[in-house]
Amino acid sequence: MRILVTNDDGIHAEGLYRLAKAMARLGEVTVVAPLIEHSAVGHAITLTDPLRVEKVFHDGHLFGRAVNGTPADCVKLAVRMLMHEPPDLVVSGINHGANTGHNVIYSGTVSAATEGAILAIPAFAISRAWSLEPDFSPAAEIAVEVAERLLAHHLPDGVLLNVNVPAIARDEIRGFRVTEQGQGRFVETFEARVDPRGKQYFWQAGETVIPDHGETIDDTALEEGYVAITPIHFDLTARPFMAELASWGW
Amino acid sequence: MRILVTNDDGIHAEGLYRLAKAMARLGEVTVVAPLIEHSAVGHAITLTDPLRVEKVFHDGHLFGRAVNGTPADCVKLAVRMLMHEPPDLVVSGINHGANTGHNVIYSGTVSAATEGAILAIPAFAISRAWSLEPDFSPAAEIAVEVAERLLAHHLPDGVLLNVNVPAIARDEIRGFRVTEQGQGRFVETFEARVDPRGKQYFWQAGETVIPDHGETIDDTALEEGYVAITPIHFDLTARPFMAELASWGW
Repeated sequence: MRILVTNDDGIHAEGLYRLAKAMARLGEVTVVAPLIEHSAVGHAITLTDPLRVEKVFHDGHLFGRAVNGTPADCVKLAVRMLMHEPPDLVVSGINHGANTGHNVIYSGTVSAATEGAILAIPAFAISRAWSLEPDFSPAAEIAVEVAERLLAHHLPDGVLLNVNVPAIARDEIRGFRVTEQGQGRFVETFEARVDPRGKQYFWQAGETVIPDHGETIDDTALEEGYVAITPIHFDLTARPFMAELASWGW
Repeated sequence: MRILVTNDDGIHAEGLYRLAKAMARLGEVTVVAPLIEHSAVGHAITLTDPLRVEKVFHDGHLFGRAVNGTPADCVKLAVRMLMHEPPDLVVSGINHGANTGHNVIYSGTVSAATEGAILAIPAFAISRAWSLEPDFSPAAEIAVEVAERLLAHHLPDGVLLNVNVPAIARDEIRGFRVTEQGQGRFVETFEARVDPRGKQYFWQAGETVIPDHGETIDDTALEEGYVAITPIHFDLTARPFMAELASWGW
């Protein structure tokens, strides 16, 4: 089995290394990841600049390839150009910080897995809730469990899994929950500053607000010590509203 | 009425100018748009660099403000910092090139309107199918019609409109259709080249493939001469699959 491993925190991120090591228990791993951090790039692709690929070695062995592009670029380039045969599975992560609620749409980690689904390859994204000195090993174990279940079953066309792991020890994790994307979000504030040349600039900052709670909400599952597994798709159509919209007298 | 107008083709794009002029018939327009083109940035936001704002004048009058960030940054910054009161409507466009099918998830134009919906402001994105020498006036007229209907009705929380206009004259447009995001997509190929220093690089290229046809498909509506109006949302949960996923024995 061939497994493509990527992320958005970049080729040197610890979460990527832990994920690649864990996935190697299941098959042949190819790592293709961004050269630099690409958090909050959403589903970006690079059309106006050329893409370059660099081999990255660990202790004299090829660890993976770094691309001067986005997570989605990495998956497209890996599948179309860098791998001899397409992978059987695309895994993106382990992101440092949860990708839940509204944040899912800004997530480069999720966009890489989405690219797998677009290319009709089973795929999941895995993120671990943020903490100051993260231990990625519980999430790496969970990635193996999710991969095994994913390969034993069948995802519908265009559907992938968005997996989030709480920031607690493996034996404190209470299990898995199938969840939905909640309303948790980052509410921005902008800090206006003045640079040494007297010109104004703004830093984007803010705080996370989680307004909804309930057993099926992704952020609630994390808070209660469960791994949150949300099936997602890239069809954005708001179907329940189509009939009402059609009645607007177009 | 206050209307925020933005885009992803950048502050100097003709489509933005035409849209701002047309919207001025309905209310007070504020233009805040990216300094440079940001196509295919998806729903990116800028967290690691400071944002700067520059006033752009046309013939000695303030046209708008340019931000060294993404379309989503422009909307966040405009609403939180640059406008005295939040807008009643966010309009993003007129993009040069349709945002239909899978392309919706890569679209900076759509992401700017989505940001409006996230901030609970009625919003729509408007794009005009690509052609060599585009005439944006039909799409500008249609933007006014859509804005009027949008303000006379009510969008559900978290829903926005993605409007696509065919590349034909106003009197050839056959009307409006409420549509869904189809399976049309850009199938990438990568062209490998060698630079003057002997190093390999890749250009992303490809061609559009539209596999599905049917009255409710966005690309079909365009092909048949209709304006395609797709209601979209940013909840990516694949709800129909949740029950089956829960049966995977987690």
